[in-house]
Amino acid sequence: MEYVRVGLLGLGTIGSGVSEALLDGGYRQRIEKRYGVIPVLARAYDTDDEKLQAIPPEARCESAKKLLDDPEVDVVVELIGIPGGDYTPANDFMLGALERGKQVVTANKAVLAQYGEDIFSRAREKDLCVGFEASVCGSIPIINILKQSVDEIESVSGIFNGTTNYILTRMGEDLDYMDALIEAQQKGFAEADPTSDLEGIDAAQKLAILARLAFNIRADALSKEGITGVDKGDLGYARTLSNPCTVKLIAMAKKHDGKLELGVYPVMVPESHQLASVRNETNAVYVVGEHFGPQIYTGKGAGKEPTADAVMRDIVDVGRCMATGKTNLPALNDEKLEVLDPGEVEYPFYLRFSAVNVPGVLARIAGVLGDMYKINIVSANQPGNNPQGEPADIVIVTDPTKYGNMRKALDEIKRVEKKGTKIVAGSKAFRIFDGA
Amino acid sequence: MEYVRVGLLGLGTIGSGVSEALLDGGYRQRIEKRYGVIPVLARAYDTDDEKLQAIPPEARCESAKKLLDDPEVDVVVELIGIPGGDYTPANDFMLGALERGKQVVTANKAVLAQYGEDIFSRAREKDLCVGFEASVCGSIPIINILKQSVDEIESVSGIFNGTTNYILTRMGEDLDYMDALIEAQQKGFAEADPTSDLEGIDAAQKLAILARLAFNIRADALSKEGITGVDKGDLGYARTLSNPCTVKLIAMAKKHDGKLELGVYPVMVPESHQLASVRNETNAVYVVGEHFGPQIYTGKGAGKEPTADAVMRDIVDVGRCMATGKTNLPALNDEKLEVLDPGEVEYPFYLRFSAVNVPGVLARIAGVLGDMYKINIVSANQPGNNPQGEPADIVIVTDPTKYGNMRKALDEIKRVEKKGTKIVAGSKAFRIFDGA
Repeated sequence: MEYVRVGLLGLGTIGSGVSEALLDGGYRQRIEKRYGVIPVLARAYDTDDEKLQAIPPEARCESAKKLLDDPEVDVVVELIGIPGGDYTPANDFMLGALERGKQVVTANKAVLAQYGEDIFSRAREKDLCVGFEASVCGSIPIINILKQSVDEIESVSGIFNGTTNYILTRMGEDLDYMDALIEAQQKGFAEADPTSDLEGIDAAQKLAILARLAFNIRADALSKEGITGVDKGDLGYARTLSNPCTVKLIAMAKKHDGKLELGVYPVMVPESHQLASVRNETNAVYVVGEHFGPQIYTGKGAGKEPTADAVMRDIVDVGRCMATGKTNLPALNDEKLEVLDPGEVEYPFYLRFSAVNVPGVLARIAGVLGDMYKINIVSANQPGNNPQGEPADIVIVTDPTKYGNMRKALDEIKRVEKKGTKIVAGSKAFRIFDGA
Repeated sequence: MEYVRVGLLGLGTIGSGVSEALLDGGYRQRIEKRYGVIPVLARAYDTDDEKLQAIPPEARCESAKKLLDDPEVDVVVELIGIPGGDYTPANDFMLGALERGKQVVTANKAVLAQYGEDIFSRAREKDLCVGFEASVCGSIPIINILKQSVDEIESVSGIFNGTTNYILTRMGEDLDYMDALIEAQQKGFAEADPTSDLEGIDAAQKLAILARLAFNIRADALSKEGITGVDKGDLGYARTLSNPCTVKLIAMAKKHDGKLELGVYPVMVPESHQLASVRNETNAVYVVGEHFGPQIYTGKGAGKEPTADAVMRDIVDVGRCMATGKTNLPALNDEKLEVLDPGEVEYPFYLRFSAVNVPGVLARIAGVLGDMYKINIVSANQPGNNPQGEPADIVIVTDPTKYGNMRKALDEIKRVEKKGTKIVAGSKAFRIFDGA
């Protein structure tokens, strides 16, 4: 039997879940029986003294520094997040733990997305482990799956943010954006300040971590667009397309001829695709391997118990690695993929214009798209059937074109209109998912 | 660097995929770089001499016995299946390999379902590994996920057979059963003799393997029903239910108050459930954990490359374990779950009767169900709107009742009709999926 002595930094939602699991006799017995590893809560620390009261007195620690220095701690489990937006404490704790020869487990997607390269290379140098299953999509074991994959990965994409998926699902049920957001907050699926979720930052951090693992690239130049430009009208129009769709916030890392597309954006996903059926706060990771083909993993992406369970799996994994004295991190490939300018990637597009319904408006838009930018229109509709002279929506589906070209065409339409009668007031362009 | 010297038994579809992967420089380099393990094809054997010609001369072996005895082989990869329905050779080879202190990797679901207990306990005794990821749902890493899970598993279920899922999908697109089966055969999704798939035997074998891993039970008493009783009419009616459904062949291992439901049967799955969107030959595993909640994994369940990739993952896993001298099998729990009589499990039901449309026929059926067996009817319809005196279908949805009770009610309806006017000619009862 191998004891794994855990030092727990941070007793927030996930941290309290982990301490409860570590103190739960049934949980521990099951792990001991199955894996011959006994995880124990050796030390815990939180800046909030009240939270420490839930910890048995003998395990309470006075400071993070003491916890790191304590020879009774084998594994430092860092769950402090980024207090006040500050990446430094968590990064320092992880590096400090490795410095002292201790294993690390973390759920810190922000810090790993930013400083993971450094943390991982320190761990590899010292043959130490970093467990970070809980940093991406909560309960879904995607980190472990990618760590153990032997196939060449073609793409890693999916729905990595539960808050926005909940809001999009509810907008598809005819709720307004703000009502859906408030509901998500009431249900605990959105934070008081939901900016990081709504603007795609949270999804981009997770994508950066997965892209590093699957493709060995730094993902700092990651392009991202959130869901603030989506309204329930788009979800309604999506359903009426000839290939009916729904809108999802998709994080996408995908190879194109040796270069990597890397971005987060709202995407029209055909209803026939499995990702379209991933509803509410559920997360999904879509992986395509050269040999194994497409796979989808779905599950709870957040929440105390699902995330704490991922941390517990990591603690056991690290415990088993400790016996071998080897890191649990796969080595890096030498090959470095180039990250594609997102403007260079071709997609079919869903376009939506707000326009005054006067004769010729569609022709003017079509003229700019087709004649000037060689973008072929597959369908064009005015779904509202509004009377002439009234504001109306125009919905257009195009053949595949580069995003950069599409943006230029939309800018041109805007420019023409500014000079003229302003009959076209606004526009949006969402990629249409082509399957992978 | 650790060399893992593979002895490959069987060069059929999967075996040739594995030998190609082992001889593929790119594949090997990637593995070497990432994991510090170098898998090499040391020996190969097949009863078909022609297949051996694809193997480099120095690796060709004259017999299985020689391969097992060869000190140049670390891992025996058994991919011979059950030639002529005979479980003995594969079972003997696996036990023989373990006897000689060699690691084992296999894709043999039939032999593991039947003799896995023995094989695993021998491996544990000698601290050897058994890799069997490829035995269940091809590319989906469900064995590894369950092996590494620390949570209490509540249920493991899903769509484990691609042939039947393909046929059901096509029947939902209005193809007749036989046409769908022939199409599946033409596309290579069904074997020339599809009995094992159609009657649920293949799915039951996979379920037995997963149930042993998740719940530590022997699954020989597994009740199974295939899709031979499903026709395209059921798929059509499924869509018209007030909660629209589709028919899937579901393998189910689920805890109910400390006892385990264990069976394979055609089930009405609500279209809103993610399993309903798993189409064609795709497989899906649905796992519910006490803490992590529901998760679904989907991917290719068969085929040369996806399955060979699963074998390759196992070879690498075994290679890494070899360094530690420990088995990769989790220990068994002491706790033994009791397997529930499937008649004891409650479900809501979809019932379909073929009947002559005469006044009172519905009342007679309803009478037996409600008055004699206390089965509440939620809805009853004659979807065809047939004229009186003509044969017609009656579709009934019930509240949850025990399957045993429902079977008795159907037998009673049959018995009454035999004595009387034979206006009710046939009946079927499919469980309606309640979410997990």
